[in-house]
Amino acid sequence: MVQQEVLDRVFASLADPTRRGILVRLGEGPATVGELAEPTGMTLTGMKKHVRILEDAGLIVTEKVGRARECRLGSAPLDEAMAWISFYQRLWARRLDGLDAYFTLRDPKGSR
Amino acid sequence: MVQQEVLDRVFASLADPTRRGILVRLGEGPATVGELAEPTGMTLTGMKKHVRILEDAGLIVTEKVGRARECRLGSAPLDEAMAWISFYQRLWARRLDGLDAYFTLRDPKGSR
Repeated sequence: MVQQEVLDRVFASLADPTRRGILVRLGEGPATVGELAEPTGMTLTGMKKHVRILEDAGLIVTEKVGRARECRLGSAPLDEAMAWISFYQRLWARRLDGLDAYFTLRDPKGSR
Repeated sequence: MVQQEVLDRVFASLADPTRRGILVRLGEGPATVGELAEPTGMTLTGMKKHVRILEDAGLIVTEKVGRARECRLGSAPLDEAMAWISFYQRLWARRLDGLDAYFTLRDPKGSR
């Protein structure tokens, strides 16, 4: 159940281009909320909402530094999400293998 | 932009345990909306909403078969999502390599 909630939050975090952009930006190094907001033309308040969502999902961590809030990537970014997608893709590949075997059986010369 | 919308829809689709469950179930083979609803105790109307969201994201396709609507996996499930996460993880790994190089430089004997 807890695992499901982690996945819910991680995938919901990723379902927004601004938040995906923040993760890519933080991949280059830490940034304050102001530095994240500046190139997007977004208000600080708007950017803070996105930062909060990413932080709640564990994808980033933030720390008060002087008057600014510095953001950096969390320690296990997207591992859960990647693991779920991989599991699902294996499942899907097995299904395709099954279909392939089915067609080969029907037409062993493979002339389809 | 279109690519961003695809990612928005795919990740939003995955941000729900019922919808992730549907994908795993359809990995075993096609199912009608009724068959998907039955083990969850969900109403047909409730299940149809989830099915519509997955269909809009291109993750499943549906087809009217007699009085039922049959669902099966789409043809390129989660490739976009996987590609994005992979790109991001490479970026993150590079950042860690950078940190590692930094610590090695400070303490070449590696005694930390």
